[in-house]
Amino acid sequence: MLSRVSFVMVEPSHPGNVGSAARALKTMGFARLVLVNPRVPDAKNHPDAVALASGATDVLAGAAVCETLEEALAPVTMAFAMTARHRDLGPPACDMRQAAQLAREHLYSDGSGQAQAAVVLGTERSGLTNGQVALCHRLCHIPANPEYSSLNVAQALQLAAYELRYALLDAAALAPAGRPAGPEPAPGAVVEALLTHWEQALVAVGYLDPRHPKKLMPRMRHLFSRAGLSREETDLLRGVCTAIIAQSRKISDGRS
Amino acid sequence: MLSRVSFVMVEPSHPGNVGSAARALKTMGFARLVLVNPRVPDAKNHPDAVALASGATDVLAGAAVCETLEEALAPVTMAFAMTARHRDLGPPACDMRQAAQLAREHLYSDGSGQAQAAVVLGTERSGLTNGQVALCHRLCHIPANPEYSSLNVAQALQLAAYELRYALLDAAALAPAGRPAGPEPAPGAVVEALLTHWEQALVAVGYLDPRHPKKLMPRMRHLFSRAGLSREETDLLRGVCTAIIAQSRKISDGRS
Repeated sequence: MLSRVSFVMVEPSHPGNVGSAARALKTMGFARLVLVNPRVPDAKNHPDAVALASGATDVLAGAAVCETLEEALAPVTMAFAMTARHRDLGPPACDMRQAAQLAREHLYSDGSGQAQAAVVLGTERSGLTNGQVALCHRLCHIPANPEYSSLNVAQALQLAAYELRYALLDAAALAPAGRPAGPEPAPGAVVEALLTHWEQALVAVGYLDPRHPKKLMPRMRHLFSRAGLSREETDLLRGVCTAIIAQSRKISDGRS
Repeated sequence: MLSRVSFVMVEPSHPGNVGSAARALKTMGFARLVLVNPRVPDAKNHPDAVALASGATDVLAGAAVCETLEEALAPVTMAFAMTARHRDLGPPACDMRQAAQLAREHLYSDGSGQAQAAVVLGTERSGLTNGQVALCHRLCHIPANPEYSSLNVAQALQLAAYELRYALLDAAALAPAGRPAGPEPAPGAVVEALLTHWEQALVAVGYLDPRHPKKLMPRMRHLFSRAGLSREETDLLRGVCTAIIAQSRKISDGRS
């Protein structure tokens, strides 16, 4: 079950932190590290990364490198954004222990074998942007000392991996046999495609003015993300989009 | 309550680890670090210690230095020995989360105000001796990857401090400060009205055939219910319904 969790570092600046992250993951039995647009070229072969990975050079060498967070989350069905800051209009917030419980429920209730969880960390300096947070299903935070919450990314990752290990292995021991399978969850790329289609439909039906979009699409994203859509539900909603767009074409054809 | 917990490093070799330990404690709101017979003279003023303590130089500067573990544990009423190895004839063993619960019960059930807990870590190289472990009340371990349990002392301390913080502060105190109230949730009648309106829109757009509704509406209900809609979201979605129905009327008006 641990192999279905990945840890995503967005634009890491210091290769040493990437190495420490690899080590932190491996101590907790995880192996999937993803680097989104690292600031240093070839970050995973940098001497600082290799030195700090210590015996976890296998995790470091196996790290995936992506251009964008969307790409990193394309196969992911439940993503947790680690952030200490509150966000207006962000996904629902929880602490890291609750996040680990949610990941556990998500992964164990999946009958399709397709569910994947991810923990997403922002840059060392400024964390995640609101746009990056919006690609995730939940916000989570480490309940640190509010007067000195100076956890570096590798430490935050260590605590996240620890909580996930604890929750996922505990669940393995406790999982009732023969539990009915839940629906197949929709991966990130499928939800993104739905949002694009939904936006087109809202424009076609005249509800969304592309010149004055306001916060309509972020609100819709928030709603869909919170619901944790199944693949079947995304299919249903895309069917609605197709019907709306087809109807609006009839009107413009009628006018022409 | 956090001030009644100390963290004891026995014979630390690397001043950098002492600095990292100070930082790890402070991130979790603890301040009592005790060094037993450090291998480097004046370890807490060593440049590596100061550098790695980062903003936790107050904790580092305030660290107590003792000659022996007995001296460090003299005021302590419940001591936990952190060790990955099993010991014959040692104190009872538990994991770090259970240890934190025990510390909580111990400190909160104390009427005298004299109870003090301590977490004791051994040397970087060889951990605690059997004689040192025997001075403690409980053994505790971090449930790490058995094939790579390479946590350094500062990381082990970070996880121990995290568990103790979580156990000692109640959930209310852990909630992020200044968190705004969430959006107003939609009451059941509002969601029912939305579902009725949504059904009319799906019929109007030709997606739902009222003679063969299949399970479309139960599925939509399930989705909306799971999301826990806010009142604002139901307003948005009802706006979409109104737009869809208005558009379909244009078509039928065009035909008539």
